[in-house]
Amino acid sequence: MTQSDARSGDTDGGSDPAAGADDSGATKPVRLLSRDQLAEIDEARRTTTETRRVSVPGVEDILYQPIPVLDRGFVRVIDYMGDDGAVVQAARVSYGKGTRKLREDEGLIRYLLRHRHTTPFEMCEIKFHVKLPIFVARQWIRHRTANVNEYSARYSILDNEFYVPAPAELAAQSTANRQGRGDVLEGAEAARALDILKGDAGRAYEHYEELLNEREDGSVIDPDRQGLARELARMNLSLSFYTQWYWKVDLHNLMHFLSLRADPHAQYEIRVYADAMLDVLHRWVPATARAFADYRMGGAHLSAAGLAVVKRLLAGEDVTRESTDLSAREWRELMATLGREG
Amino acid sequence: MTQSDARSGDTDGGSDPAAGADDSGATKPVRLLSRDQLAEIDEARRTTTETRRVSVPGVEDILYQPIPVLDRGFVRVIDYMGDDGAVVQAARVSYGKGTRKLREDEGLIRYLLRHRHTTPFEMCEIKFHVKLPIFVARQWIRHRTANVNEYSARYSILDNEFYVPAPAELAAQSTANRQGRGDVLEGAEAARALDILKGDAGRAYEHYEELLNEREDGSVIDPDRQGLARELARMNLSLSFYTQWYWKVDLHNLMHFLSLRADPHAQYEIRVYADAMLDVLHRWVPATARAFADYRMGGAHLSAAGLAVVKRLLAGEDVTRESTDLSAREWRELMATLGREG
Amino acid sequence: MTQSDARSGDTDGGSDPAAGADDSGATKPVRLLSRDQLAEIDEARRTTTETRRVSVPGVEDILYQPIPVLDRGFVRVIDYMGDDGAVVQAARVSYGKGTRKLREDEGLIRYLLRHRHTTPFEMCEIKFHVKLPIFVARQWIRHRTANVNEYSARYSILDNEFYVPAPAELAAQSTANRQGRGDVLEGAEAARALDILKGDAGRAYEHYEELLNEREDGSVIDPDRQGLARELARMNLSLSFYTQWYWKVDLHNLMHFLSLRADPHAQYEIRVYADAMLDVLHRWVPATARAFADYRMGGAHLSAAGLAVVKRLLAGEDVTRESTDLSAREWRELMATLGREG
Amino acid sequence: MTQSDARSGDTDGGSDPAAGADDSGATKPVRLLSRDQLAEIDEARRTTTETRRVSVPGVEDILYQPIPVLDRGFVRVIDYMGDDGAVVQAARVSYGKGTRKLREDEGLIRYLLRHRHTTPFEMCEIKFHVKLPIFVARQWIRHRTANVNEYSARYSILDNEFYVPAPAELAAQSTANRQGRGDVLEGAEAARALDILKGDAGRAYEHYEELLNEREDGSVIDPDRQGLARELARMNLSLSFYTQWYWKVDLHNLMHFLSLRADPHAQYEIRVYADAMLDVLHRWVPATARAFADYRMGGAHLSAAGLAVVKRLLAGEDVTRESTDLSAREWRELMATLGREG
Repeated sequence: MTQSDARSGDTDGGSDPAAGADDSGATKPVRLLSRDQLAEIDEARRTTTETRRVSVPGVEDILYQPIPVLDRGFVRVIDYMGDDGAVVQAARVSYGKGTRKLREDEGLIRYLLRHRHTTPFEMCEIKFHVKLPIFVARQWIRHRTANVNEYSARYSILDNEFYVPAPAELAAQSTANRQGRGDVLEGAEAARALDILKGDAGRAYEHYEELLNEREDGSVIDPDRQGLARELARMNLSLSFYTQWYWKVDLHNLMHFLSLRADPHAQYEIRVYADAMLDVLHRWVPATARAFADYRMGGAHLSAAGLAVVKRLLAGEDVTRESTDLSAREWRELMATLGREG
Repeated sequence: MTQSDARSGDTDGGSDPAAGADDSGATKPVRLLSRDQLAEIDEARRTTTETRRVSVPGVEDILYQPIPVLDRGFVRVIDYMGDDGAVVQAARVSYGKGTRKLREDEGLIRYLLRHRHTTPFEMCEIKFHVKLPIFVARQWIRHRTANVNEYSARYSILDNEFYVPAPAELAAQSTANRQGRGDVLEGAEAARALDILKGDAGRAYEHYEELLNEREDGSVIDPDRQGLARELARMNLSLSFYTQWYWKVDLHNLMHFLSLRADPHAQYEIRVYADAMLDVLHRWVPATARAFADYRMGGAHLSAAGLAVVKRLLAGEDVTRESTDLSAREWRELMATLGREG
Repeated sequence: MTQSDARSGDTDGGSDPAAGADDSGATKPVRLLSRDQLAEIDEARRTTTETRRVSVPGVEDILYQPIPVLDRGFVRVIDYMGDDGAVVQAARVSYGKGTRKLREDEGLIRYLLRHRHTTPFEMCEIKFHVKLPIFVARQWIRHRTANVNEYSARYSILDNEFYVPAPAELAAQSTANRQGRGDVLEGAEAARALDILKGDAGRAYEHYEELLNEREDGSVIDPDRQGLARELARMNLSLSFYTQWYWKVDLHNLMHFLSLRADPHAQYEIRVYADAMLDVLHRWVPATARAFADYRMGGAHLSAAGLAVVKRLLAGEDVTRESTDLSAREWRELMATLGREG
Repeated sequence: MTQSDARSGDTDGGSDPAAGADDSGATKPVRLLSRDQLAEIDEARRTTTETRRVSVPGVEDILYQPIPVLDRGFVRVIDYMGDDGAVVQAARVSYGKGTRKLREDEGLIRYLLRHRHTTPFEMCEIKFHVKLPIFVARQWIRHRTANVNEYSARYSILDNEFYVPAPAELAAQSTANRQGRGDVLEGAEAARALDILKGDAGRAYEHYEELLNEREDGSVIDPDRQGLARELARMNLSLSFYTQWYWKVDLHNLMHFLSLRADPHAQYEIRVYADAMLDVLHRWVPATARAFADYRMGGAHLSAAGLAVVKRLLAGEDVTRESTDLSAREWRELMATLGREG
């Protein structure tokens, strides 16, 4: 699970799927969803129908339920199509639901993934409802091979919800890597950073309401004013505010997304979403998820020059960087992959 | 229904979903599927599970069943995700399954379609198994926004099944339109055309088997020969042979496909597939299908110059082509749209 | 670095293509680009080569030059491939560069556009460099059929540049349309709105620098602090800040973008970018742009029910809404299209 | 060069870019293009213009010229956009044409490719004119991320040109791999296979003309007949006939295509096209092509289990298959990658 449960001292809400963690590490639990939203979800979960389609109990168990991510975000599975068998069925263009011989099916799935036969994996589809900070949404949307419906701040008023990093995630700029994080900030600097982030976001929302001349609950502030158009007022909000969308993707493109975003190089704030969806992957298509873990997440790609080094090492040669075609950086990366000291 | 039932005098197979029409107008019904395939489909249809997902009875009724198209082709729905409510739910980024107020939902669906808000329609997905002649497959595949798994003639041996047009479809080249059909051929010319098409396809398949050194049933012809590689032998088959694939598409892109291929300008042999899928559309998402019929299939697009003509006509003016910016061809098309004599 | 020596008042640059308009409507011009950037552009413009490819003088004239949009944004053409002739060449799969018979070519282009033969238009490509507010970028990116490289605030520091609407664009929320603008705000309310937008954005940037422990010019603020990671600090900026990207798209998808975003229903802040690109379209592919103006921008789509009304009107009937299948809203839209009073 | 020059004893046409190889190994050279087509190409090549865009001399040299592939096919570069510098420029969202510091640029290109930062490579585009057998076109079109305009056999009459494998490519079905080739057929079996392929294709074309009631040169056969519609008659042709299309793709997707189709596992008849385009890649974007050769074409992907084996081997352990998580097949593939005996 991706949630930083540690941060929430939710003494009374631990088993509630709708309870998120308070950002400040304080004891008050935060409600992810309103009573009305929870009621809608409950009703959706209670309603079942009979279907001739394949169903996956592991996904049915969590269908519609929010999986908490970050301080106020979540991922919910809204719908799905197909299972491991559907991958096999498509690869064979068969007439039935798949062979049901699990061992054979898993072998074929591993073969398909190993040899980049990606189209059978496109035959499964999943739909998520995601609540996420806008700066995360901006990274996420770069994956174009998915369908998206986002909540419109042109049309509606955004909620007063913004992301505040947990203290453990308040990282300094890395000095080694321009695109990474270094040590965790502490003491006065950490406190000041949190003050700024909370203060500016809080003020931005107050001013957003003033610009709209309307409060979050829909009440008018000053009946003698008109209020700025929603499509303009929204620009006063910062990138830490939460938005939400429906996101639908096929299994192949989901794995591509996860291989990039559940990677240690991905920014923490998107990685926790990918981690939550990786758990869903194991529930939904366990054989595919195992093959994915082995071939994509846990594997390594060697360049031609890197492979040549491995062969020389295996032949017992004592290889130095200077005797190869690798740059210093590539050499370091290769040695790290092989678990050797450079 | 797209099937040319008229052509088949299937005295014993009329209600059999697996029976196609004989191409020659003769009385012997053709089996679309083998006993094993029918048994697989029956088993798939008998197996039901409970699901929390939305189900659509109109699609469940026909799930897995082949809908006959052309003389030996078919379309089968293999799986689906979502319904009319899912379009509404996505447009509203809502927490439940949709409003359930049917009248309001239909109004929203019509609004979305009218104003080209296409992304909510991308939230529904459907998967077909299609058997179709290769020359139809070559047109179809040009729609790139779908997922496809085709039966591989590199890996497997194609069946001895090829399309022969029914006599009523044996059309001459249009003289008015380089891309259209004219009169139906009759008498000796029709007979000769059918002879050629059947004779060449039959011989091509016999030679295909000889090249492979293997018959359709898998038996070896001459144990002292090796047989040409499948990936080469296939090139002896003509474009009239049937192939098959799994084709998965979202609702928006399905409607785009149908608007182009269920159109009178589309070639007959792909239009009958589109017609069969249009029937499925009405079963699956009836409100969306009605809006689609009104706004896309039954409507008309006017150019700026064409709209100017309509306004002048409505003002009572007696408009001649020469007084407009329209070419002779555009004028004819506009008059046809308005149901007036040019 | 994209920076804003910008808001320095260069009194001698009024006719400079790199000078934008000051947001307040006042006379002080704003520098869109730094001296270094202008020098880079000048050098690129001075360097010419001989090519066997088709060139379009109308685009060459403006290549690399920023076209100002909004108060600090711009669009620049960076590269292009093909011209009107390339559309014709692709439609004919020809061996040469096109017929050079302009009249015939234009007729074919009009035919292709009228009958939705879109693939020949995909054979031309154009690449823009765009500077735009983040909330505009979030709308824009929803068009997935383009290639994008955005300036990374994970890796680099954003400039202190944010959008402030000109007084004439400071619109109230529409009361008739939840997604539109009403009257322009005036007097104290307008002044207060501008104060908020400028004040909050200014403070957000100051705090962004403090969080980073680094100023826009790269200098360190406090050598004893580490500074928050860039990928985190950016979330304190608001959606009004400018970002920039390279955006590459084919001619078909560009026209699709323009048909939606140069439309009166599009938000003003994205429409002005579309308008600038529409001018580029006329320079680049004039015949295609004319056909586009006639068939897409200036035309109208009638539903089946709407077309039936037009036919009845043309037959001289006095049609009332009640006698049709149109909703009140559809009736109003149809009457507006036909230029009649409802 | 991908052409099987060996097959052509073209004593008088060796240096003619428009001369293909005769399929039968005989001495008569085959003209790939007609005189008119060659004249069109010559005229296009003679016409040059000045441009401010970047040009690449290595591509200009071969622009428009057909590169022969198979017995009657070719690849021609029709247009291109960008160069290695454009990749760098996009990655940096810069204002000028790139750094011009070649060494730095190449380092960045290698970094981008190694770390799968693919979007900068999407900023370059290339357009080919390809003539290829229909069964090759059916594989090729599965790559959906490209733009295609194919010669229409609905509208026009196909030429009497079909692929006949050279004797060295007349391979038997592999017994080890259902999707591969084994020994080359020889003697009577080879002769019989060629007889069938040529005879059936020749007859199919004669009958195609008879169905159309029109010969390849456009003359009518029997003025008293109408002729079958083109869209129907074409189905009598076999998959060995040549078609042609314009194919436009960005650099990232071109490399993806090449990594799959220039691979030894790809079918020979598509691989030779990929090989020809790989040569073009080195002319067009040499730094990118070198990185591609090192990281994609020459490298290897290790699974987690495979990487574990490599680490154990490097630690001096004597690893047997049974002590690993690898299947027999995976073990064989890993040993082959490492150049060791299994």
